[in-house]
Amino acid sequence: VGERPNQGFADRLAALVEERRSQIVLGLDPDPSALWPVAVEAGAESGGDATPAAQAAAAVERHCRAAIDAVADQVVAVKPQLACFERLGAPGWQALQNTTRYAQKQGLLVIADGKRGDVPVTARAYAQALLTGIDTPFGRIDGLGADAITANPMLGRDALEPLIEAANQANAGVFVLVRTSNPGAAEIQDEPAEAPLHEKLARLVHELGVGAVTGATRPDLLQKLRDLMPNAIFLLPGVGAQGGSAADLGPAFVNHPAGGLIASSRSIVGAGNAEAARAAAMQLKEAAWNASTVR
Amino acid sequence: VGERPNQGFADRLAALVEERRSQIVLGLDPDPSALWPVAVEAGAESGGDATPAAQAAAAVERHCRAAIDAVADQVVAVKPQLACFERLGAPGWQALQNTTRYAQKQGLLVIADGKRGDVPVTARAYAQALLTGIDTPFGRIDGLGADAITANPMLGRDALEPLIEAANQANAGVFVLVRTSNPGAAEIQDEPAEAPLHEKLARLVHELGVGAVTGATRPDLLQKLRDLMPNAIFLLPGVGAQGGSAADLGPAFVNHPAGGLIASSRSIVGAGNAEAARAAAMQLKEAAWNASTVR
Repeated sequence: VGERPNQGFADRLAALVEERRSQIVLGLDPDPSALWPVAVEAGAESGGDATPAAQAAAAVERHCRAAIDAVADQVVAVKPQLACFERLGAPGWQALQNTTRYAQKQGLLVIADGKRGDVPVTARAYAQALLTGIDTPFGRIDGLGADAITANPMLGRDALEPLIEAANQANAGVFVLVRTSNPGAAEIQDEPAEAPLHEKLARLVHELGVGAVTGATRPDLLQKLRDLMPNAIFLLPGVGAQGGSAADLGPAFVNHPAGGLIASSRSIVGAGNAEAARAAAMQLKEAAWNASTVR
Repeated sequence: VGERPNQGFADRLAALVEERRSQIVLGLDPDPSALWPVAVEAGAESGGDATPAAQAAAAVERHCRAAIDAVADQVVAVKPQLACFERLGAPGWQALQNTTRYAQKQGLLVIADGKRGDVPVTARAYAQALLTGIDTPFGRIDGLGADAITANPMLGRDALEPLIEAANQANAGVFVLVRTSNPGAAEIQDEPAEAPLHEKLARLVHELGVGAVTGATRPDLLQKLRDLMPNAIFLLPGVGAQGGSAADLGPAFVNHPAGGLIASSRSIVGAGNAEAARAAAMQLKEAAWNASTVR
């Protein structure tokens, strides 16, 4: 993490705020069933053989452009809600890119609101998607080129760092969730807990009756987590490259052999060919099955 | 939330695990610079006038198909890492959809690993993107159709519920992050805190020197958060539809008029036309500027 993260973004923002006497950000959460009429027309006109997704994406893009045109001199930034574009599939992602470019051309900053958060290697991929870009054997692929992003800090400091580094590189900003605006935030974010957050979350998961992601890198926590979530299916990342071992994961399986799932990517695919991948998968499968049948 | 969330998914999973004696999930985190040779060839052959993104997406899709073919009978599911597809733009999202369909055709479950988490209205959009789909004036758009998703619980119960409801509807499962596998998880997830999580996160944000998302719906917390993060830019969602008021946000601006940004979507765009949107933006801008200049 650089010396003054966010500084480039903060400077650009401060200049805009003072120039426009505005701290307002236009949220772009386009709902296909509540678009402005001009946008619905544009979608319908986008072609008889276009798919519903392509038409809806054309309409959403037109809606965002009209909203930006209407308020561009009253606001300093737009904040596209990534979910609203993702639900339109690939054409939706294209509409997000086009909307980002359009807003930037009108002199507005773009805050990509995706609230991403993941382990460091994956955080780097999100940074490439939203901020910087990636070099491939087929040429450079530019990222979205947002001026700032929102980020979820639940995974901790090492998971934020790749986002912050990429933001520094791109002269962009990062907004980290500290206290969100929804009513349900209080239970997790405000109530002091004598117990670690993972126990609070384990109780919530048990109550909701869903599955749990419980890293295989801390097998010492598994028995306690299993006690707190007797019925949950555990999804266990971290075996292999991250240092976890299938043989240590017994407590995940105490109730049923399907009580745990071991997710592995690099240790299966990393060898680079089908035969080695198959052998690695077989070996991992045996180790897990053995761990699950020792009670 | 239904009576037995995850049950349909859990039943399908249990049958597969016992049939194959495997609890292994193939992670699909394709890195364009480390694809299997057969995939790089497929990308290169995908057309002279294809963009780098289209070629890379074709290569990534072929890589995933080869990996699935190699281990399909050794594993019960695949777990595509959404970040790795998003960084290829719109063609990447299409490759994700194609990979999902291909894995399901081979009899595998698909766990879409995006770790999404957002306020309820946005969580519904993510649910539509990944699980169910959405009806538009242009026809139905199917979602990714994943068999399960991963979800980030930091926003609390009301933010998880739309994901769980959609999963029930789609006979799918939800895995909620409880304890992640990265080293940095310990600081946030394991250490007991006498203070609320939002204060722990505020200290982290201050230390990292980035911005903070601080909901406008709890103005009573703002002064404390400003004390903990004297230099951070606050991004303040929740004004308008969620009940927050710009006039209450003074503490966000104590250091600089650009110390806070007010994000508003429905209260600007909701009126449905450009004139009303412009008037709403002007009014909000005035209210915020006034709050920022009263010290």
